[in-house]
Amino acid sequence: MITLMTDFGYKDPYVGIMKGVIYGLNPDVQIVDITHGISAHNIMEAAIKINESYRYFPGHTIHMVVVDPGVGSERRPIMVQVEGHTFVGPDNGVFAKVIASATEQAIVRHITAEHHFLPERGNTFHGRDVFAPVAAWLSKGVKGEDMGEEIEDAVTLDFPLPSPGKGGSLNGRVVYIDAFGNAITNLTPEHIKAVLDKDPDKKLRVLTRAGQMDFKNFFAESTDGKPHAIINSNGHLEIFIYRGNASEVLKLNPGDPVGITLA
Amino acid sequence: MITLMTDFGYKDPYVGIMKGVIYGLNPDVQIVDITHGISAHNIMEAAIKINESYRYFPGHTIHMVVVDPGVGSERRPIMVQVEGHTFVGPDNGVFAKVIASATEQAIVRHITAEHHFLPERGNTFHGRDVFAPVAAWLSKGVKGEDMGEEIEDAVTLDFPLPSPGKGGSLNGRVVYIDAFGNAITNLTPEHIKAVLDKDPDKKLRVLTRAGQMDFKNFFAESTDGKPHAIINSNGHLEIFIYRGNASEVLKLNPGDPVGITLA
Amino acid sequence: MITLMTDFGYKDPYVGIMKGVIYGLNPDVQIVDITHGISAHNIMEAAIKINESYRYFPGHTIHMVVVDPGVGSERRPIMVQVEGHTFVGPDNGVFAKVIASATEQAIVRHITAEHHFLPERGNTFHGRDVFAPVAAWLSKGVKGEDMGEEIEDAVTLDFPLPSPGKGGSLNGRVVYIDAFGNAITNLTPEHIKAVLDKDPDKKLRVLTRAGQMDFKNFFAESTDGKPHAIINSNGHLEIFIYRGNASEVLKLNPGDPVGITLA
Repeated sequence: MITLMTDFGYKDPYVGIMKGVIYGLNPDVQIVDITHGISAHNIMEAAIKINESYRYFPGHTIHMVVVDPGVGSERRPIMVQVEGHTFVGPDNGVFAKVIASATEQAIVRHITAEHHFLPERGNTFHGRDVFAPVAAWLSKGVKGEDMGEEIEDAVTLDFPLPSPGKGGSLNGRVVYIDAFGNAITNLTPEHIKAVLDKDPDKKLRVLTRAGQMDFKNFFAESTDGKPHAIINSNGHLEIFIYRGNASEVLKLNPGDPVGITLA
Repeated sequence: MITLMTDFGYKDPYVGIMKGVIYGLNPDVQIVDITHGISAHNIMEAAIKINESYRYFPGHTIHMVVVDPGVGSERRPIMVQVEGHTFVGPDNGVFAKVIASATEQAIVRHITAEHHFLPERGNTFHGRDVFAPVAAWLSKGVKGEDMGEEIEDAVTLDFPLPSPGKGGSLNGRVVYIDAFGNAITNLTPEHIKAVLDKDPDKKLRVLTRAGQMDFKNFFAESTDGKPHAIINSNGHLEIFIYRGNASEVLKLNPGDPVGITLA
Repeated sequence: MITLMTDFGYKDPYVGIMKGVIYGLNPDVQIVDITHGISAHNIMEAAIKINESYRYFPGHTIHMVVVDPGVGSERRPIMVQVEGHTFVGPDNGVFAKVIASATEQAIVRHITAEHHFLPERGNTFHGRDVFAPVAAWLSKGVKGEDMGEEIEDAVTLDFPLPSPGKGGSLNGRVVYIDAFGNAITNLTPEHIKAVLDKDPDKKLRVLTRAGQMDFKNFFAESTDGKPHAIINSNGHLEIFIYRGNASEVLKLNPGDPVGITLA
């Protein structure tokens, strides 16, 4: 099985063309779209989303991520093997969170086996010319060691962590706005526990520039049309409005501050 | 075969994650997207669309519909068996039109077989934690009776029917605007026949707030850039502009009145 | 294998319904979406995109293209056989570029074998009622000659070619804006060579209404936030801004002039 995640959108034939290349080399493989709606050139968004997604796929799945503004430059094509999964894409950080979050040391290789690329290659579409054929050959049983040498200097990213604030509070950030307008933060139940442990008798409050809010256990627990916080199914604090669009109403964007404190 | 219909859109990895869960349990199943473009939280839209779609799939198909603002609350997960198809989703009315439109009595079950859910479950993404694994197990041959007890009080919806107007006319409504801007109504050839039968010598007119229009047999029969009515391939009166966007030009929205009368 | 390209977008269940019809007739076929994001009713865009895409699929693939404003009128359903691929869709020019660009004479047939259509047919959705079942039957081995007689008068389109300008320059046009905002033109390396051959000592410049620009070999070669030109992976001159949206910044639209000249 090969999964695809890109910032190509749904208007152009680019995704279909990559699938044609893959099926041409391996007609028996199963291709699954994770999403092609990553914001254009947004490497950090792709890094977070592939890390959130890949564990739900069967072992031995090959995950191809093409968010690749540096295509055609010196940036290397790489493959990553970790947790029983294989990843193929550019060495620009798209796999940085997968590597950093894994429970084992990842094996990263610089893909140099050009005989596994398309014979005619351009400088603008390595999804088609490099990553699709490499993923297809891997799905046919070509070994990682045949793709290139191991490297230890793959590009990393700085994922912002919550920082301590006044009175035991923690200052986090919005990381991502989903299609429902829910604002997903970098705050987790561990952070909440750390704040609550300062004084378990007090109540936790979530603070944004637009005001404070409390926690709900599920979306429909709130029917007042106001923003509330929830721990989402991915283990992150998320700000939502039941049947509404929290990020539009609160004008929240990625990078905006979200704090947790005791009231 | 398992089909998917959701309001998740195409930006997030949520649909891909559900497919990973399904393929992880049943690598041999075929998954087909019907659409993930249902308007957010719009249960009635999903109810109409799944009823319009499912008959075109082979018998024994499992249709998973996840438009689920009440996720995590007391709302039940259900499965519906009718017309040789199986449906899995929340008990909020998404299957109300399938059940009401079937030529036979549907069997509806409250899904309680938690051993067929994902072991770790949250309160915000039952598409991943409940409906995807249940659909996968059903596709592997688990029987409906192993998923839970039959119920007879599944949530129903009020689908607005056309009401009689002056002089034998009928007052219908816009039900849905499609991606071409065509405005699909709740008026059918039976309604048209009922109006025409009052005086077969007169001509039928379609009335909206923005004016009246006549019928065409196919889109390209009209090349005047003006709105016209047609019976669409789904058996409903639809307002269109040839190569144009009728709902934008006429400012039509779901719920707006559309009448048929004799001129 | 059957590929799908339409202007249906991602909001409606129309694409899913066509897949249901195909799988109902041939459960073993592989269906691949090329794109459903063709601009509504834009036959020329579809003609260019299917020609750009099909060669990346395995031989014997059946490509179904449904951009069909004339559905239900006298326009004929056709199939095209060329370069080892088969194409199914309306006779309105969507296959004109495939036919014109092929290295061999295409066989075009008027599909009249109504016993291969759906028994109940409407006038607004031949993707479902005609093209999907025909593609499915072809994928099951029905021969082209069983679908209808050969024709030699399939609809053609005028694809604008660059015209000569002052001092050996060439006046091309923007043909398409992709989802990244890159403006793809009808100028190719052959046109560039023709201009350069006039005086190989001079440097090539690209001219738009919004100013002139030079060439880069890959996107990231330019980090000044300004527009530049590149030969894209499809062999066309493309105007881009590294990590930016060139067509928005330069207000470029399909049809706008883009010239190449010597400086």
